[in-house]
Amino acid sequence: MMNMSRTGLWLVGAHGGVATTVAVGLAALQDKNNFGCSHLACGLVSQLPQFRSLDLVGWDQVVVGGHDIRQTTSLKEAQGLSSGTVPAIAPMLVEASRGFLKEFESRIRPGILFNAGSTIESLSSKDRVAAVDTPRQAIACVQKDLSEFITSSGCDRVVVVHIASTEPPPVIIEPLPESWSQFQGLLDHHDGPLPSSTLYAIAALEMGLPFVNFTPSLGSCPAAVQDLAVRKKTCHMGCDGKTGETFLKSVLAPAFAKRNLEIMSWVGHNIFGNMDGQVLNDPLNKQTKVASKDRLLRQMLGYDPQTHISIEYIKSLGDWKTAWDHIHFRAFLGTPMTLQFTWQGCDSILAAPLVLDLFRFTELASRRGETGCLTQFSSFFKSPLGTDENDFAVQFNQLTQWASSL
Amino acid sequence: MMNMSRTGLWLVGAHGGVATTVAVGLAALQDKNNFGCSHLACGLVSQLPQFRSLDLVGWDQVVVGGHDIRQTTSLKEAQGLSSGTVPAIAPMLVEASRGFLKEFESRIRPGILFNAGSTIESLSSKDRVAAVDTPRQAIACVQKDLSEFITSSGCDRVVVVHIASTEPPPVIIEPLPESWSQFQGLLDHHDGPLPSSTLYAIAALEMGLPFVNFTPSLGSCPAAVQDLAVRKKTCHMGCDGKTGETFLKSVLAPAFAKRNLEIMSWVGHNIFGNMDGQVLNDPLNKQTKVASKDRLLRQMLGYDPQTHISIEYIKSLGDWKTAWDHIHFRAFLGTPMTLQFTWQGCDSILAAPLVLDLFRFTELASRRGETGCLTQFSSFFKSPLGTDENDFAVQFNQLTQWASSL
Amino acid sequence: MMNMSRTGLWLVGAHGGVATTVAVGLAALQDKNNFGCSHLACGLVSQLPQFRSLDLVGWDQVVVGGHDIRQTTSLKEAQGLSSGTVPAIAPMLVEASRGFLKEFESRIRPGILFNAGSTIESLSSKDRVAAVDTPRQAIACVQKDLSEFITSSGCDRVVVVHIASTEPPPVIIEPLPESWSQFQGLLDHHDGPLPSSTLYAIAALEMGLPFVNFTPSLGSCPAAVQDLAVRKKTCHMGCDGKTGETFLKSVLAPAFAKRNLEIMSWVGHNIFGNMDGQVLNDPLNKQTKVASKDRLLRQMLGYDPQTHISIEYIKSLGDWKTAWDHIHFRAFLGTPMTLQFTWQGCDSILAAPLVLDLFRFTELASRRGETGCLTQFSSFFKSPLGTDENDFAVQFNQLTQWASSL
Amino acid sequence: MMNMSRTGLWLVGAHGGVATTVAVGLAALQDKNNFGCSHLACGLVSQLPQFRSLDLVGWDQVVVGGHDIRQTTSLKEAQGLSSGTVPAIAPMLVEASRGFLKEFESRIRPGILFNAGSTIESLSSKDRVAAVDTPRQAIACVQKDLSEFITSSGCDRVVVVHIASTEPPPVIIEPLPESWSQFQGLLDHHDGPLPSSTLYAIAALEMGLPFVNFTPSLGSCPAAVQDLAVRKKTCHMGCDGKTGETFLKSVLAPAFAKRNLEIMSWVGHNIFGNMDGQVLNDPLNKQTKVASKDRLLRQMLGYDPQTHISIEYIKSLGDWKTAWDHIHFRAFLGTPMTLQFTWQGCDSILAAPLVLDLFRFTELASRRGETGCLTQFSSFFKSPLGTDENDFAVQFNQLTQWASSL
Repeated sequence: MMNMSRTGLWLVGAHGGVATTVAVGLAALQDKNNFGCSHLACGLVSQLPQFRSLDLVGWDQVVVGGHDIRQTTSLKEAQGLSSGTVPAIAPMLVEASRGFLKEFESRIRPGILFNAGSTIESLSSKDRVAAVDTPRQAIACVQKDLSEFITSSGCDRVVVVHIASTEPPPVIIEPLPESWSQFQGLLDHHDGPLPSSTLYAIAALEMGLPFVNFTPSLGSCPAAVQDLAVRKKTCHMGCDGKTGETFLKSVLAPAFAKRNLEIMSWVGHNIFGNMDGQVLNDPLNKQTKVASKDRLLRQMLGYDPQTHISIEYIKSLGDWKTAWDHIHFRAFLGTPMTLQFTWQGCDSILAAPLVLDLFRFTELASRRGETGCLTQFSSFFKSPLGTDENDFAVQFNQLTQWASSL
Repeated sequence: MMNMSRTGLWLVGAHGGVATTVAVGLAALQDKNNFGCSHLACGLVSQLPQFRSLDLVGWDQVVVGGHDIRQTTSLKEAQGLSSGTVPAIAPMLVEASRGFLKEFESRIRPGILFNAGSTIESLSSKDRVAAVDTPRQAIACVQKDLSEFITSSGCDRVVVVHIASTEPPPVIIEPLPESWSQFQGLLDHHDGPLPSSTLYAIAALEMGLPFVNFTPSLGSCPAAVQDLAVRKKTCHMGCDGKTGETFLKSVLAPAFAKRNLEIMSWVGHNIFGNMDGQVLNDPLNKQTKVASKDRLLRQMLGYDPQTHISIEYIKSLGDWKTAWDHIHFRAFLGTPMTLQFTWQGCDSILAAPLVLDLFRFTELASRRGETGCLTQFSSFFKSPLGTDENDFAVQFNQLTQWASSL
Repeated sequence: MMNMSRTGLWLVGAHGGVATTVAVGLAALQDKNNFGCSHLACGLVSQLPQFRSLDLVGWDQVVVGGHDIRQTTSLKEAQGLSSGTVPAIAPMLVEASRGFLKEFESRIRPGILFNAGSTIESLSSKDRVAAVDTPRQAIACVQKDLSEFITSSGCDRVVVVHIASTEPPPVIIEPLPESWSQFQGLLDHHDGPLPSSTLYAIAALEMGLPFVNFTPSLGSCPAAVQDLAVRKKTCHMGCDGKTGETFLKSVLAPAFAKRNLEIMSWVGHNIFGNMDGQVLNDPLNKQTKVASKDRLLRQMLGYDPQTHISIEYIKSLGDWKTAWDHIHFRAFLGTPMTLQFTWQGCDSILAAPLVLDLFRFTELASRRGETGCLTQFSSFFKSPLGTDENDFAVQFNQLTQWASSL
Repeated sequence: MMNMSRTGLWLVGAHGGVATTVAVGLAALQDKNNFGCSHLACGLVSQLPQFRSLDLVGWDQVVVGGHDIRQTTSLKEAQGLSSGTVPAIAPMLVEASRGFLKEFESRIRPGILFNAGSTIESLSSKDRVAAVDTPRQAIACVQKDLSEFITSSGCDRVVVVHIASTEPPPVIIEPLPESWSQFQGLLDHHDGPLPSSTLYAIAALEMGLPFVNFTPSLGSCPAAVQDLAVRKKTCHMGCDGKTGETFLKSVLAPAFAKRNLEIMSWVGHNIFGNMDGQVLNDPLNKQTKVASKDRLLRQMLGYDPQTHISIEYIKSLGDWKTAWDHIHFRAFLGTPMTLQFTWQGCDSILAAPLVLDLFRFTELASRRGETGCLTQFSSFFKSPLGTDENDFAVQFNQLTQWASSL
């Protein structure tokens, strides 16, 4: 492996379930011989035949680091995900990843904490939160960590992916300034409106590093931050990984539309018991998530069916999310009919490969000089930034067309 | 309405649930003022904005007739569909359709009965089966009925749609001859292998009338019959209307494939209690249907998951079909997950608008001179003839592209 | 029918879905010859063989009247329940009930309105609310209506059943006095804490008429009101008819307990679109209902699993309630397993026969001199008053034992 | 533990999933200190407070042995059950049971094989089938193994539990003789109609050992075998452990009956992928099982709803059985409603504690001198021998009444 170039994947929320699964998965992908489990690569879009000819980063080249505000270790988190009778990760995979997780741990730095709401704050440990006064200082601190990572790991490229807990919607009293120069004024006051996710985005983009917002938090959404990406000749995208229930929505709703079946109501109930669920149990944080899950139906259908989305923290389910959706629709002669589905999936396991895919695709796009908000990856997001397209089949076509064009 | 040209829709299986619903629906569409129910046009694909500019037959222009082998009346069948507490059709719609149904009834002729299996035979009435000895005579008889219909109704164009009960798979001892001249030899013997559906197809195509096979029966599948269509400069298509569970399969399976989620098993249980269910309760007839429902997964996924499809006649459900599907798939790191869905739909109500759509689209294609097996309508079929494409999104794109090209 | 004694069923909430279904049902039961539908008596517990030898009121003897605060008619409400493609009541049943509904309508009086919350108030019509200042006046007004009903109908016995919309939990600043003499002080002030349901209870009990609280509203729960029943030598019971999801809870939870399967979490989501749903959409009213649905699990299991109950108003569902319950339990060696159920029932159709059963059973108990809170009917209630028993099988045994003892 | 009396549990089908789970479970129960998992005793009925005062065998006293016809080891089978991402048994439990499983293995003897059908035969290994010619020799061979077990283990009591694969229904040309003396004539011919399960029953009962038939196979059902038990002053019971779907049937159906809700149809689809599923995939063996699952509805309801039960082998599910039941019932005014449930449970985990319970309860009953067919344990069986009672609540009452009477 000598002389092989290395590429960095920087995870904001490095101790979370998704990051931990990304790490265990990478360990497995890097050293298949030591892993008994076949089918490791299921769920990885970038491994599909359609993308075989792309010059994507090889699994062996990836180095992982990240930020987190919780006092724990990757190994401990991985063991947590693999315990119980119905674990999210097979125990033997964790065992085989010990070395990888230890190295990952050594590259995890304390995070920053701004406008994340009391629930997220209560999960943080004082030792694990960077001691800074202003957003500007926080950004500097994050950039220092990123620089050190680049130096120490020898990576020639780094992609920052935000997978930290969902923040409450920002309390914005006056509209955020649209130009970067004015926007910077918000960074000097301790009590500004910007949440951590946006500060991480700024930190990365200012350094010219691509930023991927896999959560519904604000991240790189503000116009001025998008402007920054363009000016720094780097790219960004978001928001909110489309993993389970919403993925199915973006598959099913267009099909109903194409059959002229009128959806009268779509009710979705989500129950799960991981830390994500715990944070979303806070009504403020939940608000951000529900908005992200709810918005796309109207865009796909062209009208507004009655919708109801609930997300409930049910401890016994752990990382296994169960969603029950009830779709009430009208067919010929006005006849009402019903489709119900129950989805039982493990959130971290669904999200982790998409994070790896986005890392690879973004790195390639960035390497090829694409800048600004990239929309060809909209199939990965619940609320794709820069496009209104939510039909999964159309979104996926855009991805394969991009790939063919390279 | 004077001077307006009229177009004929000839339904094979004219007393069945689908045909009856087609008739009630047409009555409603022709005279909206007399109908209290809004949302009549739900489920009609040809009413979508995408097809607004097409020169499709207007509802007012349609005249319906057909063949059937059962002793009953359209009105009686419509009342059956609208009785009970959870009817398939609202009683007031049937009341408002009385006149239309009576006229329809006057244009229904006794059918033909060859190799349909004992279950279908037991449903037939001697008076309603044309007294013929050979397939050739049966074809002549059907053609006589069609000619009379054209004359008496003043239709300048007619489309024949086959919606009769599913026949058993034909018992074919030696391969059917591929050329039409040799194939004709099969028509002279009383005990040849061809089922009624194929004789109807031949009757229509020989007269230059388009033939649509909305069932999994053999219909126009034999190469020689397809050849006949080309030679007679008319068109045909099939097989087996894609209404409920299989429609969802063709929507969901490609989405799993695009996420690289490996489907390990797909189990589908269908229960319903209409006449279709009664016929499919016969293991021979069921065999044809299950094959049609089962075949497309492999084509969409590129591999063979374990599948199981059951179709059971449960009398209490009447025309309301319930399908439970259990999809067991493998995600990242080999983790098994589950999607289950329950579909509760009324079969006749789902099928009828697609029959109307196919009638309109086929009539237009035929009027524009398209001949042979038309594949742009594959989104309507479980087992599309002439194409291997089963991904609903792709199929629908082919339909809109055809529309745009006109 | 000359000389046959007549018995009165007085429904508080006489224009609601349950009352309307009770009326249509009684019309059908009284004149079976005019009704085409068989199976009318399904769902009537009092028609079971176990109770055949009881001297219950015959359907022919029942006269119905009631109170309501909404401006409408029984016929209009019945037509509403029977419209649409999936009606709650078959249209022909409503047609056949016209005469009965008209007579019922003539015996419906304006209701009273105290502490019912803004949602219920907004449904009321000024003309349909008795113009009274104090609770005492309201009680007098109700009693006047009841007296007139008794006189005009010639009933020798009357049972009052409360089936009006769920009220918010009462705002009780200081504990309600337990003795009737002190309790009466609350009746003289316009702004006392007692809701309409309790005033109806007092009105009935003071007159010596049995009172059945089929809702989770306060009704006859206060100790002083219970005391009043005893002193007036009449009987009462409640609360909250056990119709669908909770009925299943009281059947399933004891079975899990008897198998030593530990329920870790029980999540229940209820969606429906009738007026009950509209009222329960108000968080205050919903609070009363959820408490009633939630409380029994602990009592049956002996420990507290995590529970979540949601009730959402989804307009398109009308009177058809769908409940999805997800039960996560632990089996041998700590293995987690899952039971999910989906219940699709029509609320009014489930409740109406239980109202008729309670009317008949209560009338018999009262005729036989039983007084105070009757607990042998606990199988009919979500929150049975006077007993902690919630196991449906045990509750039903108590009912049959009472019947055998007569 | 010196001087503590020891009791033997002899498992026919000792290498199967249930037996293996019994062994792992016993290991865990005997040495709680070495097991990290709490909640071990969930699912054990005999551990309920209701039975605390009974003088049941302590877990420490149990010694396990058994017969099997497959070439494998208990440890290998346990590892199979604990592998995969969603294992039936937690891997650490298997690790902690190594010693116990090894000892168990040393007490497993080759089984006998008569009229078990070709599917079971194909699973057997020649080395693991006792070389005998006649049923009488097979019985002698089994008895020799049991005698050696008693001697070598020092057990003063032994209970034989049959948990081997479901046999096809016996092909019985003439009725089996009812007296034991005549019945013995069947034992001398190689090609008699009796299956292995009945020979095991005879072997045990002749030695005065209690026999529990936890499968739907014939076992001790023949009158002559029941007669043998009485004459040998020992006891027996069966058939077919009531673990999942049928358990729910026996809980739900009586509740529908008590509410006078008419069940029109009850459809149950079962899918799973363990060896039991593999054997039941053979139509002959399936026939026995379906009959056992189907028969009880009529007994509980008093009428015959339409039923359909399917059992399908779906490999990917392993030991996790999923059952989907669709219950279509009629409520007041003939209104049809629906209850659907999905049960996701691990068969071995559900069955094993019931085997342990039956062992303990039977041992106690036997120690107290109870003989013949014991019916107080009917709550454990799908097709309880000697009683028609299938209502789970009533059956459980019989169990607690028996316990109180001791």
